[in-house]
Amino acid sequence: MKLPNYVSGQWSEGAGAGEALIDPVTGEELASISSQGVNLDAALAFARTFGGPALRQLSYAQRAEILAKISDVLAANRDEYFRLSLLNLGANQADASFDVDGAIYTMKYYAKVGRALAEGKMLKEGALVPLSKNNAFVGQHFLMPAKGAAVFINAFNFPAWGLCEKAAPALLSGVPVVVKPASPTAWVTHRMVEDIVKAGILPQGAISIVCGSARDLLGHVREEDIVSFTGSADTAARIRSHANVLRRSVRVNIEADSINSAILGPDGAPGTDLFDLLVKEVVREMTLKAGQKCTTIRRVLVPRQQLKAFGDAVTIRLSSMKVGNPRNPEVKVGPVVNKAQQSSCLEGLAKLKEESEVLFGGDASFQPIDADAQKSAFVQPALLSCKNGLDAKYVHDVEVFGPVATLVAYDRLQDLIAITRRGLGSLVASVFSNDTNFTRDTVLGIGDLHGRVLVVDSTVGNQHTGHGNVVPSCLHGGPGRAGGGEELAGLRALFLYHRRFVVQGPASCIAAFSESCGDTTLLYS
Amino acid sequence: MKLPNYVSGQWSEGAGAGEALIDPVTGEELASISSQGVNLDAALAFARTFGGPALRQLSYAQRAEILAKISDVLAANRDEYFRLSLLNLGANQADASFDVDGAIYTMKYYAKVGRALAEGKMLKEGALVPLSKNNAFVGQHFLMPAKGAAVFINAFNFPAWGLCEKAAPALLSGVPVVVKPASPTAWVTHRMVEDIVKAGILPQGAISIVCGSARDLLGHVREEDIVSFTGSADTAARIRSHANVLRRSVRVNIEADSINSAILGPDGAPGTDLFDLLVKEVVREMTLKAGQKCTTIRRVLVPRQQLKAFGDAVTIRLSSMKVGNPRNPEVKVGPVVNKAQQSSCLEGLAKLKEESEVLFGGDASFQPIDADAQKSAFVQPALLSCKNGLDAKYVHDVEVFGPVATLVAYDRLQDLIAITRRGLGSLVASVFSNDTNFTRDTVLGIGDLHGRVLVVDSTVGNQHTGHGNVVPSCLHGGPGRAGGGEELAGLRALFLYHRRFVVQGPASCIAAFSESCGDTTLLYS
Repeated sequence: MKLPNYVSGQWSEGAGAGEALIDPVTGEELASISSQGVNLDAALAFARTFGGPALRQLSYAQRAEILAKISDVLAANRDEYFRLSLLNLGANQADASFDVDGAIYTMKYYAKVGRALAEGKMLKEGALVPLSKNNAFVGQHFLMPAKGAAVFINAFNFPAWGLCEKAAPALLSGVPVVVKPASPTAWVTHRMVEDIVKAGILPQGAISIVCGSARDLLGHVREEDIVSFTGSADTAARIRSHANVLRRSVRVNIEADSINSAILGPDGAPGTDLFDLLVKEVVREMTLKAGQKCTTIRRVLVPRQQLKAFGDAVTIRLSSMKVGNPRNPEVKVGPVVNKAQQSSCLEGLAKLKEESEVLFGGDASFQPIDADAQKSAFVQPALLSCKNGLDAKYVHDVEVFGPVATLVAYDRLQDLIAITRRGLGSLVASVFSNDTNFTRDTVLGIGDLHGRVLVVDSTVGNQHTGHGNVVPSCLHGGPGRAGGGEELAGLRALFLYHRRFVVQGPASCIAAFSESCGDTTLLYS
Repeated sequence: MKLPNYVSGQWSEGAGAGEALIDPVTGEELASISSQGVNLDAALAFARTFGGPALRQLSYAQRAEILAKISDVLAANRDEYFRLSLLNLGANQADASFDVDGAIYTMKYYAKVGRALAEGKMLKEGALVPLSKNNAFVGQHFLMPAKGAAVFINAFNFPAWGLCEKAAPALLSGVPVVVKPASPTAWVTHRMVEDIVKAGILPQGAISIVCGSARDLLGHVREEDIVSFTGSADTAARIRSHANVLRRSVRVNIEADSINSAILGPDGAPGTDLFDLLVKEVVREMTLKAGQKCTTIRRVLVPRQQLKAFGDAVTIRLSSMKVGNPRNPEVKVGPVVNKAQQSSCLEGLAKLKEESEVLFGGDASFQPIDADAQKSAFVQPALLSCKNGLDAKYVHDVEVFGPVATLVAYDRLQDLIAITRRGLGSLVASVFSNDTNFTRDTVLGIGDLHGRVLVVDSTVGNQHTGHGNVVPSCLHGGPGRAGGGEELAGLRALFLYHRRFVVQGPASCIAAFSESCGDTTLLYS
């Protein structure tokens, strides 16, 4: 079975043998994809010419209504996405839920908050700017939806959520979507787009999907378009330095690698609830989706005197967790996404081992439950310990995208901040402490190099949202290594798909323009 | 005389013969500059280590106070900047005022509006985000000043304003400044920095200047830094695709080429005040600073039936304006900045002539007043006329950075919008019309591809701020060809020098963090 592409309002199969989608547990080929022969220039032009104008004929509130209908369609087909997630990603119920339910929730969220924007074709921003003495001539800033297409080049680990977290704000903005899911796990994205298209909710050209190679796609993007990429730093650099992207200053949003940190405060001695909360969080982060989340904890910064106890506590929990075929109800940890990722994890692990001690796991020849070690793509969870974080290199630099974390000892606040900053820009750090001074100093020391900082004390132990959990109301993204992009953060996500400009003119003319425009203060509410 | 660099808290002359600064009227060498031998890695580290922390010890209001002192110092030395502008740029009083007084005004503006931010080390943004049912666990977005350096690579046409429009928001944000002015006209920038340093207003490391080649500067920028560039699209592409900038996702702001448009509405018949207002504006734009403003009108879109009359009216005015040595009080139009720019203008003009008719000027062998045509760098003002804008190429594509403009005929609104958009992203367009429907349709048709749209009707003819005039309270920048950057726009300019992040935590903890923080709504007021 070859999954067809949907471009220019038509389903069309790509040419050639295509790339295979593989079950990472059995090694079986599930389907194939190909973008060969698809006219990507025409696909973008179709989206811009038909999809965009049709979306922008509607008000924000009407487009929010469309998102609500999309979320209904996705919710109705939830079981099927779970089935495909199991097949194509080896995802168990919890893994699939994180992606699929996260996707539906995000779509619902934007449907809900988007209604606040109500009528109007654009948004006005900020106060009137006086430009003449009698205020007859004034300025007003506006945000206008971009008149191009939003091109999404997505990551393999979130085929469902990755689509929705980008598509929801783009469609709400009135910008048509062209998604190119990561090839190895394209099936879930493909099915979602198929369901949305079949439901006839969106105007022609408002959504397109290209499966397989992106080919010459970036050669056809224009000044009006937006490219949003999630994936490796290497690919991100290729996108940013693409000649056509450079020449046209195409707006690019990047979410790339991230060596995220979790921090245990000096008050987190063994026996405290803080200690236990972080142990639980680390184990969850390592095992959920086999550690394949961009937000997963990679480094656990622990006071030196707690290093041994913390390692022991995590090890005990990891030891009891079964790794293997998610069809076995006793299994808690599934595979990574394919053999290539498995090799990449083992290579990264080998580097980490050069400067860290293995406390648990990471055995390349371990035997997964109910699966053939040769055909499947499992990585045994691995916990490492690094005694000299200030001198270490790989632990701050190599993102092992699997069930792997490294404990790093720290002695004092100044070192803790220096070590955390060695991540050179991360999506998220979490701080577990009841000491507000410590927490504040840490946040002030690292906040500028992070997109999100989670603070957990004893009072919120059972109700915090989690280190790795991305909620649509809060910023997702981070500077430096993490790519410098910004996604979600509630309606702020709409900024990416709008153009800011200022109109300077007669007060009466500005008043006429502003009439019925929503205000960008709504984007912050 | 070799102008020394100021880095790492010390004045130091670069090695070698250096590059010459030339009087564009006489061809005489005025001074030389060199950055050879300067340790640029150490210079950035010094700014980050000493300048940044010292600035961020202060509150926003205290830094606003510093800006006020800087503007006082600059105002006190205004005559000297005018003298150097005449020598190094061939600037007459009006030309020099546009740059120097614009610089001082911009610094004063940020000193004034910056006081509103008052106390606090960071800014909170938007409403509390509920994250648990009882609101015990919440999110709050913040903006924190970047902990790196702001690197400015500036354009030759605004040595004074280019420094201040970037330095004012950076310093107000608490970010130290390293400026590399364009080599040919580095003198005015250099003197301003020298005066600021001598005045002892800024902490050590808060301002640095490198004159001459940027050399390996971009090889040493880090995740915490910001690079802000104004200049050619070619250099912009080199900056954006620099390996170190890519690898670290260094934040880059670009203001590049722009083929700006001025539009005469269908109601602008000869004899109307709209017609006369635009004639006056076009002539002013072509001649002020010899057309060397990034915002200068390059294309004048005129209803076809007015093309001849409009060309005649501009020609009559241009014919009476004397071009030559600005030391002669009768002269109204000065030189371009050097021989290289002169050649570049003549090359661009040759391309425009391939598809447009010359209505006036552009004679390569014309004789400037009181100057040697061989030694000086004058370009005779040139007005061209293009009858088929939809099929033309160069008029939409070649930025002749001198006193050159092209009239382009249009027949109907749809064509007007298509022709204007052929600029592929511009800093500014202006619309001269009393027909509010026409104005609104035009703005809605082109706003997304522009940073600023100026609307002039008969009621504001004598009080609008002008097509080419950049005011600090309004956005400067534009998408696509114009580079995609954003500058000024009041306190919004501070966003570039801050990092957005969200803290998720116990409500009490968030309340403690937020205490005494200003709010980003102030950035829009």
